[in-house]
Amino acid sequence: MSDPVAPAFVLIRPQMGENIGASARAMWNFGLDRMRLVTPRDGWPNPSAVALASGAGRLLDGAQVFEKVAEAVSDCTYVYATTARPRELTKPVLTPEAAMRDAAARVATGERVAVMFGPERAGMENEDIARASAIVTVDVNPDFPSINLAQCVLLLAYEWRRATHEALPERLEGQRTDLATRLEIERLGDHYEERLDEAGFFFPATKAEGMRLNLRNLWSRLPLTQADVQMLHGMLRQMIRWKERG
Amino acid sequence: MSDPVAPAFVLIRPQMGENIGASARAMWNFGLDRMRLVTPRDGWPNPSAVALASGAGRLLDGAQVFEKVAEAVSDCTYVYATTARPRELTKPVLTPEAAMRDAAARVATGERVAVMFGPERAGMENEDIARASAIVTVDVNPDFPSINLAQCVLLLAYEWRRATHEALPERLEGQRTDLATRLEIERLGDHYEERLDEAGFFFPATKAEGMRLNLRNLWSRLPLTQADVQMLHGMLRQMIRWKERG
Repeated sequence: MSDPVAPAFVLIRPQMGENIGASARAMWNFGLDRMRLVTPRDGWPNPSAVALASGAGRLLDGAQVFEKVAEAVSDCTYVYATTARPRELTKPVLTPEAAMRDAAARVATGERVAVMFGPERAGMENEDIARASAIVTVDVNPDFPSINLAQCVLLLAYEWRRATHEALPERLEGQRTDLATRLEIERLGDHYEERLDEAGFFFPATKAEGMRLNLRNLWSRLPLTQADVQMLHGMLRQMIRWKERG
Repeated sequence: MSDPVAPAFVLIRPQMGENIGASARAMWNFGLDRMRLVTPRDGWPNPSAVALASGAGRLLDGAQVFEKVAEAVSDCTYVYATTARPRELTKPVLTPEAAMRDAAARVATGERVAVMFGPERAGMENEDIARASAIVTVDVNPDFPSINLAQCVLLLAYEWRRATHEALPERLEGQRTDLATRLEIERLGDHYEERLDEAGFFFPATKAEGMRLNLRNLWSRLPLTQADVQMLHGMLRQMIRWKERG
Protein backbone atom coordinates (compact mmCIF):
# COMPACT_ATOMS: atom_id res chain seq x y z
CA MET A 1 0.00 0.00 0.00
CA SER A 2 1.12 3.54 -0.62
CA ASP A 3 2.07 6.24 1.82
CA PRO A 4 -1.15 7.89 3.08
CA VAL A 5 0.39 11.33 2.57
CA ALA A 6 1.88 10.54 -0.86
CA PRO A 7 0.78 13.06 -3.51
CA ALA A 8 -2.81 13.02 -4.73
CA PHE A 9 -3.07 13.05 -8.54
CA VAL A 10 -5.98 15.21 -9.64
CA LEU A 11 -7.46 14.63 -13.12
CA ILE A 12 -9.36 17.77 -14.12
CA ARG A 13 -12.39 17.25 -16.42
CA PRO A 14 -10.95 14.07 -18.01
CA GLN A 15 -12.80 13.12 -21.19
CA MET A 16 -12.08 9.46 -22.00
CA GLY A 17 -12.73 6.82 -19.37
CA GLU A 18 -9.91 4.83 -20.96
CA ASN A 19 -7.47 7.57 -20.03
CA ILE A 20 -8.68 7.58 -16.42
CA GLY A 21 -8.15 3.81 -16.26
CA ALA A 22 -4.72 4.04 -17.87
CA SER A 23 -3.78 6.84 -15.47
CA ALA A 24 -4.79 4.65 -12.52
CA ARG A 25 -2.51 1.90 -13.81
CA ALA A 26 0.36 4.35 -14.31
CA MET A 27 -0.04 5.69 -10.77
CA TRP A 28 -0.13 2.25 -9.18
CA ASN A 29 2.85 1.07 -11.26
CA PHE A 30 4.86 3.49 -9.15
CA GLY A 31 3.04 2.98 -5.88
CA LEU A 32 0.68 5.97 -5.93
CA ASP A 33 -3.00 5.33 -5.23
CA ARG A 34 -4.65 8.62 -4.25
CA MET A 35 -6.66 9.62 -7.33
CA ARG A 36 -9.02 12.58 -7.45
CA LEU A 37 -11.34 13.56 -10.28
CA VAL A 38 -12.96 16.88 -11.10
CA THR A 39 -16.20 16.51 -13.09
CA PRO A 40 -15.21 13.67 -15.44
CA ARG A 41 -17.00 14.27 -18.75
CA ASP A 42 -18.79 10.92 -18.88
CA GLY A 43 -19.80 10.85 -15.22
CA TRP A 44 -18.64 8.47 -12.51
CA PRO A 45 -18.20 5.54 -12.10
CA ASN A 46 -17.14 4.88 -15.69
CA PRO A 47 -17.09 1.30 -17.08
CA SER A 48 -14.42 2.01 -19.70
CA ALA A 49 -12.17 3.37 -16.96
CA VAL A 50 -12.65 0.12 -15.03
CA ALA A 51 -11.91 -1.92 -18.17
CA LEU A 52 -8.57 -0.18 -18.70
CA ALA A 53 -7.54 -0.10 -15.05
CA SER A 54 -7.22 -3.89 -14.78
CA GLY A 55 -5.16 -4.53 -11.67
CA ALA A 56 -5.44 -0.95 -10.47
CA GLY A 57 -9.24 -0.88 -10.18
CA ARG A 58 -8.86 -0.27 -6.47
CA LEU A 59 -7.72 3.28 -7.27
CA LEU A 60 -10.96 3.93 -9.15
CA ASP A 61 -13.04 2.56 -6.26
CA GLY A 62 -11.20 4.89 -3.92
CA ALA A 63 -11.17 7.88 -6.25
CA GLN A 64 -12.72 11.05 -4.83
CA VAL A 65 -14.87 13.10 -7.21
CA PHE A 66 -15.23 16.88 -6.90
CA GLU A 67 -17.23 19.62 -8.57
CA LYS A 68 -14.48 22.19 -8.56
CA VAL A 69 -10.69 22.19 -8.77
CA ALA A 70 -10.50 24.33 -5.65
CA GLU A 71 -12.36 21.64 -3.68
CA ALA A 72 -10.19 18.86 -5.06
CA VAL A 73 -7.04 20.42 -3.64
CA SER A 74 -8.52 22.17 -0.65
CA ASP A 75 -6.69 20.00 1.91
CA CYS A 76 -3.28 20.42 0.23
CA THR A 77 -0.50 22.80 1.21
CA TYR A 78 1.28 22.74 -2.15
CA VAL A 79 -0.12 21.99 -5.60
CA TYR A 80 1.68 21.35 -8.89
CA ALA A 81 -0.01 22.04 -12.24
CA THR A 82 1.24 20.03 -15.21
CA THR A 83 1.18 22.01 -18.43
CA ALA A 84 2.85 21.73 -21.82
CA ARG A 85 2.43 25.29 -23.04
CA PRO A 86 4.18 28.13 -21.22
CA ARG A 87 1.75 30.50 -19.51
CA GLU A 88 1.86 34.15 -18.59
CA LEU A 89 1.13 33.38 -14.95
CA THR A 90 4.13 34.09 -12.77
CA LYS A 91 4.98 30.85 -11.02
CA PRO A 92 7.92 28.57 -10.45
CA VAL A 93 8.34 26.23 -13.46
CA LEU A 94 9.84 22.84 -12.59
CA THR A 95 10.85 19.69 -14.40
CA PRO A 96 9.02 16.52 -13.31
CA GLU A 97 12.18 15.43 -11.46
CA ALA A 98 12.59 18.73 -9.61
CA ALA A 99 8.88 18.84 -8.81
CA MET A 100 8.73 15.35 -7.32
CA ARG A 101 11.94 15.89 -5.33
CA ASP A 102 10.38 19.06 -4.00
CA ALA A 103 7.16 17.16 -3.26
CA ALA A 104 9.07 14.42 -1.42
CA ALA A 105 10.79 17.04 0.75
CA ARG A 106 7.48 18.73 1.54
CA VAL A 107 5.72 15.45 2.37
CA ALA A 108 8.62 14.55 4.64
CA THR A 109 7.91 17.69 6.65
CA GLY A 110 4.19 16.94 6.94
CA GLU A 111 2.85 18.88 3.95
CA ARG A 112 0.06 17.49 1.80
CA VAL A 113 0.66 17.90 -1.92
CA ALA A 114 -1.26 17.29 -5.15
CA VAL A 115 -0.41 17.17 -8.84
CA MET A 116 -3.07 18.45 -11.25
CA PHE A 117 -3.55 17.22 -14.83
CA GLY A 118 -5.76 18.99 -17.37
CA PRO A 119 -8.24 17.53 -19.89
CA GLU A 120 -6.85 15.53 -22.82
CA ARG A 121 -7.04 18.13 -25.57
CA ALA A 122 -7.18 21.57 -24.02
CA GLY A 123 -4.88 20.97 -21.09
CA MET A 124 -5.28 23.05 -17.98
CA GLU A 125 -7.05 26.38 -18.09
CA ASN A 126 -5.36 29.43 -16.66
CA GLU A 127 -8.12 29.64 -14.09
CA ASP A 128 -7.05 26.25 -12.73
CA ILE A 129 -3.34 26.93 -13.06
CA ALA A 130 -3.90 30.07 -11.04
CA ARG A 131 -4.72 27.73 -8.14
CA ALA A 132 -1.40 25.94 -8.34
CA SER A 133 1.72 26.70 -6.33
CA ALA A 134 4.04 25.75 -9.18
CA ILE A 135 4.00 24.59 -12.80
CA VAL A 136 5.50 21.31 -13.96
CA THR A 137 6.50 21.08 -17.61
CA VAL A 138 7.87 18.01 -19.34
CA ASP A 139 10.68 18.92 -21.73
CA VAL A 140 9.46 17.33 -24.98
CA ASN A 141 10.40 17.45 -28.65
CA PRO A 142 9.14 20.89 -29.81
CA ASP A 143 8.31 19.30 -33.17
CA PHE A 144 5.98 16.79 -31.47
CA PRO A 145 5.06 17.99 -27.97
CA SER A 146 1.74 16.15 -27.55
CA ILE A 147 1.95 13.58 -24.78
CA ASN A 148 -1.29 12.07 -23.61
CA LEU A 149 -2.83 12.24 -20.15
CA ALA A 150 -1.82 8.78 -18.95
CA GLN A 151 1.73 9.29 -20.24
CA CYS A 152 2.05 12.54 -18.33
CA VAL A 153 0.71 10.80 -15.21
CA LEU A 154 3.23 7.98 -15.79
CA LEU A 155 6.19 10.37 -15.94
CA LEU A 156 5.21 12.22 -12.76
CA ALA A 157 4.54 8.96 -10.90
CA TYR A 158 7.89 7.59 -12.13
CA GLU A 159 9.67 10.69 -10.84
CA TRP A 160 7.86 10.41 -7.50
CA ARG A 161 9.18 6.88 -7.06
CA ARG A 162 12.67 7.97 -8.13
CA ALA A 163 12.55 10.76 -5.58
CA THR A 164 11.43 8.49 -2.76
CA HIS A 165 13.13 5.14 -3.46
CA GLU A 166 16.71 4.11 -3.72
CA ALA A 167 17.60 3.47 -7.34
CA LEU A 168 18.61 -0.02 -8.38
CA PRO A 169 22.25 -0.71 -7.64
CA GLU A 170 24.25 0.08 -10.74
CA ARG A 171 26.73 -2.72 -10.73
CA LEU A 172 27.86 -5.82 -12.48
CA GLU A 173 25.70 -8.58 -11.02
CA GLY A 174 27.82 -10.76 -8.79
CA GLN A 175 30.64 -8.26 -8.75
CA ARG A 176 30.93 -8.38 -4.99
CA THR A 177 31.39 -12.11 -4.74
CA ASP A 178 32.09 -13.57 -8.16
CA LEU A 179 34.77 -11.51 -9.90
CA ALA A 180 37.95 -13.46 -10.47
CA THR A 181 40.95 -12.58 -8.33
CA ARG A 182 44.10 -11.24 -9.94
CA LEU A 183 45.73 -14.59 -9.15
CA GLU A 184 43.01 -16.42 -11.10
CA ILE A 185 43.47 -13.98 -13.98
CA GLU A 186 47.23 -14.54 -13.88
CA ARG A 187 46.78 -18.31 -14.05
CA LEU A 188 44.32 -17.96 -16.91
CA GLY A 189 46.86 -15.83 -18.76
CA ASP A 190 49.60 -18.39 -18.10
CA HIS A 191 47.44 -21.26 -19.30
CA TYR A 192 46.60 -19.57 -22.61
CA GLU A 193 50.12 -18.26 -23.13
CA GLU A 194 51.69 -21.70 -22.63
CA ARG A 195 49.30 -23.55 -24.89
CA LEU A 196 49.27 -20.89 -27.59
CA ASP A 197 53.04 -20.90 -27.49
CA GLU A 198 53.07 -24.66 -28.12
CA ALA A 199 50.55 -24.08 -30.88
CA GLY A 200 52.89 -21.58 -32.53
CA PHE A 201 50.60 -18.60 -32.05
CA PHE A 202 53.31 -16.11 -31.07
CA PHE A 203 54.77 -15.71 -34.51
CA PRO A 204 56.80 -14.11 -36.04
CA ALA A 205 59.40 -13.84 -33.28
CA THR A 206 59.74 -10.11 -33.85
CA LYS A 207 56.07 -9.65 -32.86
CA ALA A 208 55.87 -12.36 -30.19
CA GLU A 209 56.58 -10.08 -27.25
CA GLY A 210 53.89 -7.60 -28.24
CA MET A 211 51.38 -10.39 -28.81
CA ARG A 212 52.04 -11.88 -25.37
CA LEU A 213 51.60 -8.46 -23.84
CA ASN A 214 48.31 -7.82 -25.65
CA LEU A 215 46.94 -11.20 -24.63
CA ARG A 216 47.97 -10.70 -20.99
CA ASN A 217 46.43 -7.23 -21.09
CA LEU A 218 43.18 -8.57 -22.52
CA TRP A 219 42.55 -10.93 -19.60
CA SER A 220 43.47 -8.25 -17.08
CA ARG A 221 41.22 -5.65 -18.64
CA LEU A 222 38.04 -7.68 -18.86
CA PRO A 223 35.58 -7.92 -15.95
CA LEU A 224 35.81 -11.71 -15.78
CA THR A 225 33.93 -13.65 -13.12
CA GLN A 226 35.24 -16.89 -11.61
CA ALA A 227 32.70 -18.76 -13.73
CA ASP A 228 34.03 -17.01 -16.85
CA VAL A 229 37.56 -18.02 -15.96
CA GLN A 230 36.54 -21.64 -15.43
CA MET A 231 34.77 -21.68 -18.80
CA LEU A 232 37.80 -20.14 -20.55
CA HIS A 233 40.10 -22.77 -18.97
CA GLY A 234 37.65 -25.48 -19.98
CA MET A 235 37.47 -24.27 -23.57
CA LEU A 236 41.22 -24.40 -23.91
CA ARG A 237 41.52 -27.82 -22.25
CA GLN A 238 38.90 -29.19 -24.61
CA MET A 239 40.75 -27.86 -27.65
CA ILE A 240 43.86 -29.67 -26.38
CA ARG A 241 41.96 -32.94 -25.87
CA TRP A 242 40.56 -32.55 -29.38
CA LYS A 243 44.05 -32.06 -30.77
CA GLU A 244 45.41 -35.03 -28.86
CA ARG A 245 42.63 -37.28 -30.13
CA GLY A 246 44.09 -36.24 -33.50
CA MET B 1 15.16 15.62 -37.14
CA SER B 2 16.94 13.53 -34.58
CA ASP B 3 20.63 12.96 -34.19
CA PRO B 4 21.63 10.31 -36.76
CA VAL B 5 23.57 8.45 -34.09
CA ALA B 6 20.91 8.73 -31.40
CA PRO B 7 19.95 5.31 -30.00
CA ALA B 8 17.94 2.91 -32.14
CA PHE B 9 14.94 1.45 -30.29
CA VAL B 10 14.45 -2.20 -31.22
CA LEU B 11 11.03 -3.78 -30.67
CA ILE B 12 11.46 -7.55 -30.57
CA ARG B 13 8.51 -9.61 -31.85
CA PRO B 14 5.90 -6.95 -30.93
CA GLN B 15 2.36 -8.33 -30.95
CA MET B 16 -0.12 -5.42 -31.18
CA GLY B 17 0.24 -2.91 -33.98
CA GLU B 18 -1.30 -0.37 -31.59
CA ASN B 19 1.68 -0.76 -29.30
CA ILE B 20 4.12 -0.22 -32.17
CA GLY B 21 2.29 2.98 -33.10
CA ALA B 22 2.16 4.18 -29.50
CA SER B 23 5.87 3.41 -29.15
CA ALA B 24 6.62 5.50 -32.23
CA ARG B 25 4.73 8.42 -30.68
CA ALA B 26 6.57 8.01 -27.39
CA MET B 27 9.94 7.97 -29.16
CA TRP B 28 9.20 11.05 -31.24
CA ASN B 29 7.80 12.92 -28.21
CA PHE B 30 11.38 12.92 -26.98
CA GLY B 31 13.08 13.39 -30.33
CA LEU B 32 14.04 9.80 -31.13
CA ASP B 33 13.14 8.45 -34.56
CA ARG B 34 15.28 5.38 -35.26
CA MET B 35 12.89 2.43 -34.83
CA ARG B 36 13.78 -1.15 -35.62
CA LEU B 37 11.46 -4.17 -35.57
CA VAL B 38 12.24 -7.87 -35.28
CA THR B 39 9.52 -10.07 -36.83
CA PRO B 40 6.41 -8.14 -35.73
CA ARG B 41 3.66 -10.72 -35.12
CA ASP B 42 1.13 -9.26 -37.59
CA GLY B 43 3.62 -8.52 -40.36
CA TRP B 44 4.72 -5.15 -41.70
CA PRO B 45 3.51 -2.54 -42.55
CA ASN B 46 0.69 -2.67 -40.01
CA PRO B 47 -2.42 -0.42 -40.41
CA SER B 48 -3.24 -0.35 -36.70
CA ALA B 49 0.30 0.84 -35.98
CA VAL B 50 -0.20 3.68 -38.46
CA ALA B 51 -3.58 4.55 -36.89
CA LEU B 52 -2.02 4.93 -33.43
CA ALA B 53 1.16 6.68 -34.57
CA SER B 54 -0.67 9.83 -35.76
CA GLY B 55 1.97 12.54 -36.01
CA ALA B 56 4.83 10.07 -35.68
CA GLY B 57 4.00 7.98 -38.76
CA ARG B 58 7.31 8.98 -40.27
CA LEU B 59 9.02 6.66 -37.77
CA LEU B 60 6.97 3.72 -39.06
CA ASP B 61 7.81 4.58 -42.67
CA GLY B 62 11.48 4.63 -41.74
CA ALA B 63 11.38 1.59 -39.45
CA GLN B 64 13.80 -1.18 -40.38
CA VAL B 65 12.50 -4.75 -40.10
CA PHE B 66 14.77 -7.69 -39.31
CA GLU B 67 14.47 -11.47 -39.06
CA LYS B 68 16.78 -11.86 -36.11
CA VAL B 69 17.72 -9.83 -33.04
CA ALA B 70 21.40 -10.25 -33.91
CA GLU B 71 20.81 -8.59 -37.29
CA ALA B 72 18.82 -5.72 -35.76
CA VAL B 73 21.75 -4.65 -33.56
CA SER B 74 24.63 -5.81 -35.78
CA ASP B 75 25.94 -2.27 -36.39
CA CYS B 76 25.91 -1.28 -32.70
CA THR B 77 28.79 -1.25 -30.26
CA TYR B 78 26.66 -1.30 -27.11
CA VAL B 79 23.17 -2.70 -26.60
CA TYR B 80 20.77 -2.34 -23.67
CA ALA B 81 18.07 -4.93 -22.93
CA THR B 82 15.00 -3.73 -21.03
CA THR B 83 13.66 -6.40 -18.71
CA ALA B 84 11.40 -6.49 -15.66
CA ARG B 85 12.41 -9.83 -14.21
CA PRO B 86 15.93 -10.37 -12.91
CA ARG B 87 17.92 -12.91 -14.94
CA GLU B 88 20.75 -15.27 -14.15
CA LEU B 89 22.93 -13.87 -16.93
CA THR B 90 25.82 -11.84 -15.55
CA LYS B 91 25.51 -8.28 -16.85
CA PRO B 92 25.47 -4.73 -15.59
CA VAL B 93 21.98 -3.74 -14.38
CA LEU B 94 21.13 -0.08 -14.86
CA THR B 95 18.26 2.26 -14.11
CA PRO B 96 16.74 4.00 -17.16
CA GLU B 97 18.48 7.22 -16.07
CA ALA B 98 21.88 5.59 -15.66
CA ALA B 99 21.49 3.68 -18.92
CA MET B 100 20.61 6.73 -21.01
CA ARG B 101 23.39 8.80 -19.41
CA ASP B 102 25.76 5.98 -20.26
CA ALA B 103 24.32 5.87 -23.79
CA ALA B 104 24.78 9.64 -24.20
CA ALA B 105 28.41 9.38 -23.14
CA ARG B 106 29.00 6.50 -25.56
CA VAL B 107 27.30 8.28 -28.46
CA ALA B 108 29.40 11.36 -27.70
CA THR B 109 32.53 9.28 -28.23
CA GLY B 110 31.32 7.81 -31.53
CA GLU B 111 29.64 4.62 -30.39
CA ARG B 112 26.39 3.36 -31.89
CA VAL B 113 23.90 2.10 -29.32
CA ALA B 114 20.50 0.39 -29.29
CA VAL B 115 17.82 -0.30 -26.69
CA MET B 116 15.89 -3.58 -27.04
CA PHE B 117 12.30 -4.13 -25.88
CA GLY B 118 10.69 -7.58 -25.64
CA PRO B 119 7.20 -8.70 -26.69
CA GLU B 120 4.22 -7.41 -24.69
CA ARG B 121 3.52 -10.42 -22.51
CA ALA B 122 6.58 -12.59 -22.36
CA GLY B 123 9.24 -9.88 -22.31
CA MET B 124 12.70 -10.65 -23.62
CA GLU B 125 14.01 -14.18 -23.88
CA ASN B 126 17.34 -15.10 -22.34
CA GLU B 127 18.66 -15.90 -25.80
CA ASP B 128 18.08 -12.25 -26.79
CA ILE B 129 19.32 -10.84 -23.49
CA ALA B 130 22.50 -12.87 -23.96
CA ARG B 131 23.22 -10.60 -26.93
CA ALA B 132 22.97 -7.38 -24.87
CA SER B 133 25.80 -5.49 -23.22
CA ALA B 134 23.72 -4.42 -20.22
CA ILE B 135 20.25 -4.76 -18.70
CA VAL B 136 17.90 -1.84 -17.96
CA THR B 137 15.23 -2.34 -15.32
CA VAL B 138 12.57 0.18 -14.29
CA ASP B 139 12.09 0.28 -10.53
CA VAL B 140 8.32 -0.26 -10.24
CA ASN B 141 5.83 -1.03 -7.50
CA PRO B 142 6.44 -4.73 -6.69
CA ASP B 143 2.70 -5.12 -6.03
CA PHE B 144 1.93 -3.98 -9.60
CA PRO B 145 5.03 -4.22 -11.80
CA SER B 146 3.35 -4.58 -15.20
CA ILE B 147 4.14 -1.60 -17.41
CA ASN B 148 3.25 -1.87 -21.07
CA LEU B 149 5.56 -1.73 -24.06
CA ALA B 150 4.84 1.87 -25.08
CA GLN B 151 5.18 3.06 -21.48
CA CYS B 152 8.58 1.39 -21.19
CA VAL B 153 9.61 3.02 -24.48
CA LEU B 154 8.34 6.37 -23.17
CA LEU B 155 10.42 6.17 -19.99
CA LEU B 156 13.63 5.29 -21.85
CA ALA B 157 13.03 8.03 -24.45
CA TYR B 158 12.30 10.54 -21.66
CA GLU B 159 15.56 9.62 -19.93
CA TRP B 160 17.45 9.92 -23.24
CA ARG B 161 16.22 13.49 -23.63
CA ARG B 162 17.06 14.28 -20.00
CA ALA B 163 20.53 12.87 -20.49
CA THR B 164 21.20 14.79 -23.69
CA HIS B 165 19.65 18.14 -22.78
CA GLU B 166 22.03 18.51 -19.87
CA ALA B 167 25.81 18.62 -20.07
CA LEU B 168 27.05 15.31 -21.39
CA PRO B 169 28.75 13.07 -18.83
CA GLU B 170 32.51 12.63 -19.01
CA ARG B 171 33.82 9.94 -21.29
CA LEU B 172 33.63 6.59 -19.56
CA GLU B 173 36.87 5.01 -20.69
CA GLY B 174 38.44 7.39 -23.18
CA GLN B 175 38.09 6.61 -26.86
CA ARG B 176 35.55 3.92 -27.59
CA THR B 177 35.24 4.11 -31.32
CA ASP B 178 37.41 1.01 -31.71
CA LEU B 179 34.97 -1.17 -29.81
CA ALA B 180 33.77 -4.19 -31.78
CA THR B 181 30.33 -3.98 -33.36
CA ARG B 182 27.61 -6.45 -32.39
CA LEU B 183 28.07 -8.10 -35.79
CA GLU B 184 31.74 -8.71 -35.01
CA ILE B 185 30.78 -10.05 -31.58
CA GLU B 186 28.13 -12.29 -33.15
CA ARG B 187 30.66 -13.73 -35.60
CA LEU B 188 33.19 -14.27 -32.82
CA GLY B 189 30.52 -16.13 -30.85
CA ASP B 190 29.64 -18.23 -33.91
CA HIS B 191 33.30 -19.06 -34.59
CA TYR B 192 33.93 -20.29 -31.04
CA GLU B 193 30.60 -22.08 -30.78
CA GLU B 194 31.18 -24.00 -34.05
CA ARG B 195 34.72 -25.05 -33.25
CA LEU B 196 34.05 -25.90 -29.62
CA ASP B 197 31.09 -27.94 -30.80
CA GLU B 198 33.36 -29.94 -33.13
CA ALA B 199 35.77 -30.30 -30.24
CA GLY B 200 33.03 -31.78 -28.07
CA PHE B 201 32.99 -28.93 -25.56
CA PHE B 202 29.21 -28.73 -25.17
CA PHE B 203 28.85 -31.88 -23.13
CA PRO B 204 26.81 -33.45 -21.61
CA ALA B 205 23.84 -32.77 -23.93
CA THR B 206 21.66 -31.88 -20.95
CA LYS B 207 23.96 -28.94 -20.18
CA ALA B 208 24.81 -27.97 -23.76
CA GLU B 209 22.15 -25.29 -24.15
CA GLY B 210 23.11 -23.52 -20.95
CA MET B 211 26.79 -23.69 -21.88
CA ARG B 212 26.12 -22.15 -25.30
CA LEU B 213 24.06 -19.38 -23.67
CA ASN B 214 26.77 -18.60 -21.12
CA LEU B 215 29.46 -18.48 -23.79
CA ARG B 216 27.33 -16.19 -26.00
CA ASN B 217 26.64 -14.00 -23.00
CA LEU B 218 30.34 -13.79 -22.16
CA TRP B 219 31.31 -12.31 -25.53
CA SER B 220 28.36 -9.88 -25.47
CA ARG B 221 29.17 -8.66 -21.98
CA LEU B 222 32.87 -7.95 -22.39
CA PRO B 223 34.09 -4.56 -23.68
CA LEU B 224 35.99 -6.13 -26.57
CA THR B 225 37.80 -3.93 -29.08
CA GLN B 226 38.13 -4.87 -32.73
CA ALA B 227 41.77 -5.76 -32.00
CA ASP B 228 40.65 -8.06 -29.16
CA VAL B 229 38.21 -9.79 -31.49
CA GLN B 230 40.89 -10.31 -34.14
CA MET B 231 43.24 -11.78 -31.54
CA LEU B 232 40.53 -14.11 -30.21
CA HIS B 233 39.77 -15.31 -33.75
CA GLY B 234 43.49 -15.75 -34.37
CA MET B 235 43.98 -17.77 -31.19
CA LEU B 236 41.22 -20.15 -32.16
CA ARG B 237 42.43 -20.49 -35.76
CA GLN B 238 45.91 -21.27 -34.51
CA MET B 239 44.62 -23.99 -32.19
CA ILE B 240 42.87 -25.53 -35.18
CA ARG B 241 45.99 -25.43 -37.32
CA TRP B 242 47.90 -27.01 -34.47
CA LYS B 243 45.34 -29.79 -34.22
CA GLU B 244 45.39 -30.35 -37.96
CA ARG B 245 49.15 -30.61 -37.98
CA GLY B 246 48.49 -33.44 -35.54
